[in-house]
Amino acid sequence: MPYVNIKVTKEGLSKAKKEALIKGTTQLLVEVLDKNPATTFIVIDEVDTDNWGIGYDQVTTLRQAKQD
Amino acid sequence: MPYVNIKVTKEGLSKAKKEALIKGTTQLLVEVLDKNPATTFIVIDEVDTDNWGIGYDQVTTLRQAKQD
Amino acid sequence: MPYVNIKVTKEGLSKAKKEALIKGTTQLLVEVLDKNPATTFIVIDEVDTDNWGIGYDQVTTLRQAKQD
Amino acid sequence: MPYVNIKVTKEGLSKAKKEALIKGTTQLLVEVLDKNPATTFIVIDEVDTDNWGIGYDQVTTLRQAKQD
Amino acid sequence: MPYVNIKVTKEGLSKAKKEALIKGTTQLLVEVLDKNPATTFIVIDEVDTDNWGIGYDQVTTLRQAKQD
Amino acid sequence: MPYVNIKVTKEGLSKAKKEALIKGTTQLLVEVLDKNPATTFIVIDEVDTDNWGIGYDQVTTLRQAKQD
Repeated sequence: MPYVNIKVTKEGLSKAKKEALIKGTTQLLVEVLDKNPATTFIVIDEVDTDNWGIGYDQVTTLRQAKQD
Repeated sequence: MPYVNIKVTKEGLSKAKKEALIKGTTQLLVEVLDKNPATTFIVIDEVDTDNWGIGYDQVTTLRQAKQD
Repeated sequence: MPYVNIKVTKEGLSKAKKEALIKGTTQLLVEVLDKNPATTFIVIDEVDTDNWGIGYDQVTTLRQAKQD
Repeated sequence: MPYVNIKVTKEGLSKAKKEALIKGTTQLLVEVLDKNPATTFIVIDEVDTDNWGIGYDQVTTLRQAKQD
Repeated sequence: MPYVNIKVTKEGLSKAKKEALIKGTTQLLVEVLDKNPATTFIVIDEVDTDNWGIGYDQVTTLRQAKQD
Repeated sequence: MPYVNIKVTKEGLSKAKKEALIKGTTQLLVEVLDKNPATTFIVIDEVDTDNWGIGYDQVTTLRQAKQD
């Protein structure tokens, strides 16, 4: 009965990438903990880069600094 | 002082349905735990069906399979 | 496929009360949104009163003030 | 290594206000707990006022009542 | 900068199993999304079986029913 | 009506430190967003160092490596 919440910045995550995260995480829980995939939930949250901070800065700012 | 987070797939949930969830959950906490409704928070998250996985699959895929 | 997380202060919640919360929330999701109970998860978190703040104060302090 | 999640209603929060929340929360964790800002994450969730309930009511309804 | 929260029932999860979940999830985020492991957080919550409900029932009850 | 969840590793956080986090975070929300403290919740989760991973490793392991 696991529930997994994956939070990443919203930067063009494709449907196929999301599917790969869902399949991979579910597989991991089956292998490591012998969980039933039928009751394993994976929920992906995509967070705007303005709304995610690390080291005092918004990710938006960090991305711009990298490009400069 | 309860805080309740309800996560459901984003599939056209109306304002009235959300209100019913809020009223019902708050009422339950008042009845079962004698909580004060004035400090009972209910937060509903609607999750894109591409972002919710169960049994290795995206809910988007499960919904399509059902219609086929 | 709903996932519900109920956070309350840790103040002697009995197993029966938890069951009442689980049954009541699941029933609400079945009635309001026609969800399948077999894939409806309810997770209850009990939070130490030192770890919950409201109006600048720890709940521990609020409970003591009420008793004085 | 702290992780902080701030949930507020979605009511026109500017990029600068978000930055102030990120900087202030990170600073607090540095001052109070001597945490490393480089591994301190702040994630802000903006929640639609229809999706947030308090005292049995949607925040949307509370805002309208205040204006009447 | 991903943040992953894994919730499972508290049923004797060893330190090595937790490490396997942490390594596997981090690896998945590196492979699928090219994320930096140095800023990838994995947080595991172990939930008492009385506090987890599925299909109207506490997991405690489901485990007992299976043994009978 | 903000709700803030602060997750830190469980490493002897005193009641006074928790109070400082609660007061500081609430004050920040009052100053930056003009929120009402009476309906501002702060919830602190203390996570076992075995259950928190960063850079593929459990924090337990990182703490031991630092001491060696």
